[in-house]
Amino acid sequence: MTDRGGLEEAVVADITTSYIDGSTGELIYCGYAIEDLAETTSFEEILFLLYNARLPNQAEYEALRATVAQDAAIPAAVIQMMKSLPSGTPAMAVLRTAVSMLSAFEPDAENLTDKDVAQAKAFRLTGQITTICAAWMRIAKGQAPICPRPDLSVAENFLYMTTGEEPDPTACAALNVYLVLLAEHGMNASTFASRVVTATGSDLHSAIVAGISALKGPSHGGANSEAMKMFVEIGEVENVAPWFEKNVKSGKRRIMGIGHRVYKSNDPRAGILRRHAEALAESSGKRKWFDIAVNLAETARADDYFIQRNLYPNVDYYSAIVLYTLDLDIDMFTPLFAMSRIAGWSAHVIDQMGGRLIRPKANYVGPRGLKWIPISER
Amino acid sequence: MTDRGGLEEAVVADITTSYIDGSTGELIYCGYAIEDLAETTSFEEILFLLYNARLPNQAEYEALRATVAQDAAIPAAVIQMMKSLPSGTPAMAVLRTAVSMLSAFEPDAENLTDKDVAQAKAFRLTGQITTICAAWMRIAKGQAPICPRPDLSVAENFLYMTTGEEPDPTACAALNVYLVLLAEHGMNASTFASRVVTATGSDLHSAIVAGISALKGPSHGGANSEAMKMFVEIGEVENVAPWFEKNVKSGKRRIMGIGHRVYKSNDPRAGILRRHAEALAESSGKRKWFDIAVNLAETARADDYFIQRNLYPNVDYYSAIVLYTLDLDIDMFTPLFAMSRIAGWSAHVIDQMGGRLIRPKANYVGPRGLKWIPISER
Repeated sequence: MTDRGGLEEAVVADITTSYIDGSTGELIYCGYAIEDLAETTSFEEILFLLYNARLPNQAEYEALRATVAQDAAIPAAVIQMMKSLPSGTPAMAVLRTAVSMLSAFEPDAENLTDKDVAQAKAFRLTGQITTICAAWMRIAKGQAPICPRPDLSVAENFLYMTTGEEPDPTACAALNVYLVLLAEHGMNASTFASRVVTATGSDLHSAIVAGISALKGPSHGGANSEAMKMFVEIGEVENVAPWFEKNVKSGKRRIMGIGHRVYKSNDPRAGILRRHAEALAESSGKRKWFDIAVNLAETARADDYFIQRNLYPNVDYYSAIVLYTLDLDIDMFTPLFAMSRIAGWSAHVIDQMGGRLIRPKANYVGPRGLKWIPISER
Repeated sequence: MTDRGGLEEAVVADITTSYIDGSTGELIYCGYAIEDLAETTSFEEILFLLYNARLPNQAEYEALRATVAQDAAIPAAVIQMMKSLPSGTPAMAVLRTAVSMLSAFEPDAENLTDKDVAQAKAFRLTGQITTICAAWMRIAKGQAPICPRPDLSVAENFLYMTTGEEPDPTACAALNVYLVLLAEHGMNASTFASRVVTATGSDLHSAIVAGISALKGPSHGGANSEAMKMFVEIGEVENVAPWFEKNVKSGKRRIMGIGHRVYKSNDPRAGILRRHAEALAESSGKRKWFDIAVNLAETARADDYFIQRNLYPNVDYYSAIVLYTLDLDIDMFTPLFAMSRIAGWSAHVIDQMGGRLIRPKANYVGPRGLKWIPISER
């Protein structure tokens, strides 16, 4: 078997959506440095950029924002299905099921070939996923879901739908930055799953459902949840040093959210999210989790193990703080990742449409020539 | 880009479930020739074989059959969800959604590491998929779904649940053979999608949902539907010759279900299904579709184009006749494929559990160093 089964050396597609240089800590979307986009650009502009390889002008942006918001409502039958689920159902299983069900109400669901139609479906589904996430947060607590507002952006609408109140600008800015930073990241496992499904000629909803199914795996979309569980376990700033000594220094555990498979020095998204985590901590008065995270990161930065290996906080580390300070349960962290990554998945799906079936080989190592025996003689 | 994006040359896993030699027309499951298994073995024995690499003894088989049948009922909430879908919803979208929803009611859904638990979940899901397929056939026609019976096999239960009547033995035998023959086929696209999802550490239901999503694509699970649409278009035996002359001889169209990507001479499954299609045609008195299929195959066999290229009917050609003669709508053909292939998907999922993240590379070919411009200046 080549590659120990991970296909790390195989190149599966030429893409224009994003480029990652892990050695220099560089991430670009369609030619733009992520640092330039993060603080200046709405998530809707990123959707447009990833699908069209250019940033929208003012009129295009306004039209897109309005369309996404207007189409974000979900059918009553989908809400009813969500209400019928046991309250402890993992939010990712809810999202996977709701997105799958939405296809039955999508007039263009079975248009499998038109890329413009696919783009329109992807815009619609982006808004609908926002609504599903907010609705489940309320349904799981026994509250009635709130309808999306046509005048709000994706980030604003999500926060509005979780409480019914006018969302706080600092919170909206932090969530928008989160959505921008997580929107696309090359050929990751969930994006690849979406492409494998699309390559059979299947529909957009099937491809996104496969992406959600892959992102649900702890090795893929679970890192910021794990980081947050660690912060909760630490509990107070004064516990950071003894926790580090007992768990990390002893070699028993590693710090979740420090170090990255691809970024071997700096994850360019981490510093941006740290600034927003701090602003959010200030404006909300909920500083504790941010202070724990900063304190733990500094403790690690002073430690030889982390210095020698160039291990820095990654995007998951501070995104955990941002999401938790936005009052999201940890179970909602991966759905919020999907709410952003629908952008990248859809861009890859549209690129893959009409492409070649993706079907690597397997190497048979079992027996041959076995003689069948009647069941009574086995 | 290598491989033109299809990864045809990459080897992604060592497997023991099946081996295909397309040049000699050989298919084996865990060492046994498909010809030996097809007429002698129940689908439940194949499930056991694929998961355990050996055939069950009588007691193991009886226990498994009873377990699958007893656990095949689906929760009222899933039936309710299905009833809330528009009646024209593609059956594959219904199946994808229902399987996804079932995870919320599966006590072991989030056990992601225990292979014995995964096997038990796969047995349960196999029976439940049977029930979903039969229930949707009735719901789509405005009929009340019928509960599974604990004393029947998968093939018997499916046919029983479509009508509520004691199923005909010839029909049960034909369906069982269909389920056995389609259960596993190496590293096809849907199996690979299931593995990509499993490699992130995700759950069995997510992996099977991804398999269904990939199988839904016309280039993967759609071939026997296309074959049947062609037979329906031909309509009568006497139309075969003029249809062939007008469409095939002229080079305008190819015959759906003749020739195979892998099998370059004979598809070993086709002859077996042909015999059952014939038996079913006899016993049901509905000979027309079988006669059209045989006549068209003979017409093609006498044609130079087909002779020179060694093009023979494949599994899809006669499975279309079997399924249609069992009174299935064409829309149900791919769900029936899934009802069988759950066996292979699950065996691959269990094998992949704990394995390496599957993540090939992408090659960035877009621009670099673009300068961000404020939206008002674009």
